[in-house]
Amino acid sequence: MNKAIVLLSGGLDSATTLYFAKAKGFKCYCLIFDYGQRHNREIASAKKIAKKTGCSWQVIKIKLPWKGSALLDKKISLPPVDTNRLSGKIPFTYVPGRNIIFLSFALSFAESVGAKSIFIGAHAQDYSGYPDCRPEFYQAFSKVISTGTKAGVEKKPIKIETPLIHKSKAQIIKLGLRLGVPFKLTWSCYHGGAKPCQKCDSCYFRNKGFKELGKIDPLLN
Amino acid sequence: MNKAIVLLSGGLDSATTLYFAKAKGFKCYCLIFDYGQRHNREIASAKKIAKKTGCSWQVIKIKLPWKGSALLDKKISLPPVDTNRLSGKIPFTYVPGRNIIFLSFALSFAESVGAKSIFIGAHAQDYSGYPDCRPEFYQAFSKVISTGTKAGVEKKPIKIETPLIHKSKAQIIKLGLRLGVPFKLTWSCYHGGAKPCQKCDSCYFRNKGFKELGKIDPLLN
Repeated sequence: MNKAIVLLSGGLDSATTLYFAKAKGFKCYCLIFDYGQRHNREIASAKKIAKKTGCSWQVIKIKLPWKGSALLDKKISLPPVDTNRLSGKIPFTYVPGRNIIFLSFALSFAESVGAKSIFIGAHAQDYSGYPDCRPEFYQAFSKVISTGTKAGVEKKPIKIETPLIHKSKAQIIKLGLRLGVPFKLTWSCYHGGAKPCQKCDSCYFRNKGFKELGKIDPLLN
Repeated sequence: MNKAIVLLSGGLDSATTLYFAKAKGFKCYCLIFDYGQRHNREIASAKKIAKKTGCSWQVIKIKLPWKGSALLDKKISLPPVDTNRLSGKIPFTYVPGRNIIFLSFALSFAESVGAKSIFIGAHAQDYSGYPDCRPEFYQAFSKVISTGTKAGVEKKPIKIETPLIHKSKAQIIKLGLRLGVPFKLTWSCYHGGAKPCQKCDSCYFRNKGFKELGKIDPLLN
């Protein structure tokens, strides 16, 4: 049984990715990051999802002593709709180097346990804004693996798998429903309150996805 | 004054790199990692060196819950001379993904403070063994920066600088002596005891470097 590391945030994209990897027959090791995100409620969601699947999981605690992102710094207000994203700029919630850090840890973990793949739930709507969600970034990171690791040098490079990369939110939800993803356990809202705020960028895209499918988000039930 | 992030381990290579970056006119921000290394004495050395230069510094604490390297796991014995390295294989002290993780943090820091460069003290003797010390790895990581960061997308990519990459240990020491590096404050021994063990791989190459120059290592005085 091939092993895979799955980056699990607790959102619906990464949950669907985990279920996808399991359905493909991988033995999955979930990696969850506690990096000072304002919506740290997602960490509890990630743990619940990992437990539900019976996969092993690890929480990596990272302290980034520098700020500069609305996702880390509560002093920066979160615009209801990210005007940066709408105008084709990089969203306010961009965290410098975030996915690069996550993938680096996943890579270290993968080499240590002999995993052949790393799954990450980046998707089309993400990569419209976030540079570290784009196919060309994952291609570049693959080259880092083939040149900069023991696995790569020994010609057994670890593959970055992005099964959602060309999917819209609605398509991801559709796939998740087919795979039995417990969307009730996922968390997307950037505010991380008791209930989804229904105003932030992340709520907006989640709601839009469910609506396009004519479905109701179980978190809103 | 251009800013630079300098990866500072406390060894003589990174100390020389810091002095080199300063001599080139950069305002340097030192990044020190506490990653569970067995020779954590080097962290104290790194702090002393940073303070000596008057540069700001940050210690990033990382817990890698997976093992598999003699540098992290004291249960794995350190061979006096690394037979893996001598036979052209990857040394026992290879830590999966280590420099990739370090560079990822440096990159995040660089984007946050608007630094133009990241300095790392990788050199010729290192890259004979460690994949993450080789020029092709740094080239690949540069592509990660240009594709996967805000700085890269906005065509202001952050440069990875490896001024020692083609130098031998003796050449690095020679450069360090010219730049006034306080070698007395540096630490290289993997065992991290009160005095250098003079037996491990790291002591071996350090001693060899000083001997080739007809100099005495101030740590052995």
